[in-house]
Amino acid sequence: MAPTGPRSGDAIFASVERVNAELFTLTYGATVRQLLTDLEEVEEVNKQLDQMGYNIGIRLIDEFLAKSNVSRCVDFKETADVIAKVGFKMFLGINATVTNWDADGTCCNIILEDNPLVDFVELPDTCQGLYYCNILSGVIRGALEMVSMKTEVTWLRDMLRGDDAYELQVKLLKQVPEEYPYKDDE
Amino acid sequence: MAPTGPRSGDAIFASVERVNAELFTLTYGATVRQLLTDLEEVEEVNKQLDQMGYNIGIRLIDEFLAKSNVSRCVDFKETADVIAKVGFKMFLGINATVTNWDADGTCCNIILEDNPLVDFVELPDTCQGLYYCNILSGVIRGALEMVSMKTEVTWLRDMLRGDDAYELQVKLLKQVPEEYPYKDDE
Repeated sequence: MAPTGPRSGDAIFASVERVNAELFTLTYGATVRQLLTDLEEVEEVNKQLDQMGYNIGIRLIDEFLAKSNVSRCVDFKETADVIAKVGFKMFLGINATVTNWDADGTCCNIILEDNPLVDFVELPDTCQGLYYCNILSGVIRGALEMVSMKTEVTWLRDMLRGDDAYELQVKLLKQVPEEYPYKDDE
Repeated sequence: MAPTGPRSGDAIFASVERVNAELFTLTYGATVRQLLTDLEEVEEVNKQLDQMGYNIGIRLIDEFLAKSNVSRCVDFKETADVIAKVGFKMFLGINATVTNWDADGTCCNIILEDNPLVDFVELPDTCQGLYYCNILSGVIRGALEMVSMKTEVTWLRDMLRGDDAYELQVKLLKQVPEEYPYKDDE
């Protein structure tokens, strides 16, 4: 059977089971608040959010591959495009744009056009070092590791920290020789 | 202006912003796992999940009242029905049923027909005392407190603990004399 093409993020998002975005936002907010109480150090909270995201990403990739019909990407450029155009739409219902590629195509930025995680959020002065959305960078890192790409994902701009957008940098550190965990659908 | 009637949970759920349910499920799972690591005691995790839910509930009630057109309920019976028929549908997209009223109409059970929080979840032996979904009972308690009802919400049945359904008991402890935080929409 010839493989069908990848589905658009919009189509997938419309077809998957969903929950109320405000419930998600408030649940995430309650989680961050709880971590701040339990761990006290903002730096430690940043690390834990990233780790939680990583744990989510290594599982969410299954749903992504199963629902999106995306199979192997030819290079990291295509991968970044798929994350921005299909991934963010499929899971959060938002659009994202890839910009600012370096010369050898191993580092780019992703700008989010919206960010449901931060609705109603204001950081108190005591949390100024917090990367509130660190779970998202962790998710990308975890998901990419499951398809053999070791990456570093960091926030370049964060509106909660006074910037004018949400922007992530995704840097490919190492592409592990192919041990693709999924067979092509044929 | 005559008030319009309450909207159905289905209609509201279809119209609100939503996110992918699997992302929500995995995020919640990562939160519980993190709390288990940080707090060590299962009892303490139960308490924290309930408290997180409470904090969510006292804010989620705003969205509920704004979107549902539900205004004042005549009694606790109507309140419980609205939670089951509108609330669960609107936030989690699931149906729930109210059963087992006591004689004076202050205590009932709510049975969930589905539970997106627990997809893919299995509790290890070390977590047998965990009320994994305690956030939900906390949400109900918090939301009701904002409309002047002090309640106790507990899990009677929990499939993660080997029961054959998810069933909550909601008991009205005290109805605080009306200080309704919202004006009727007129």
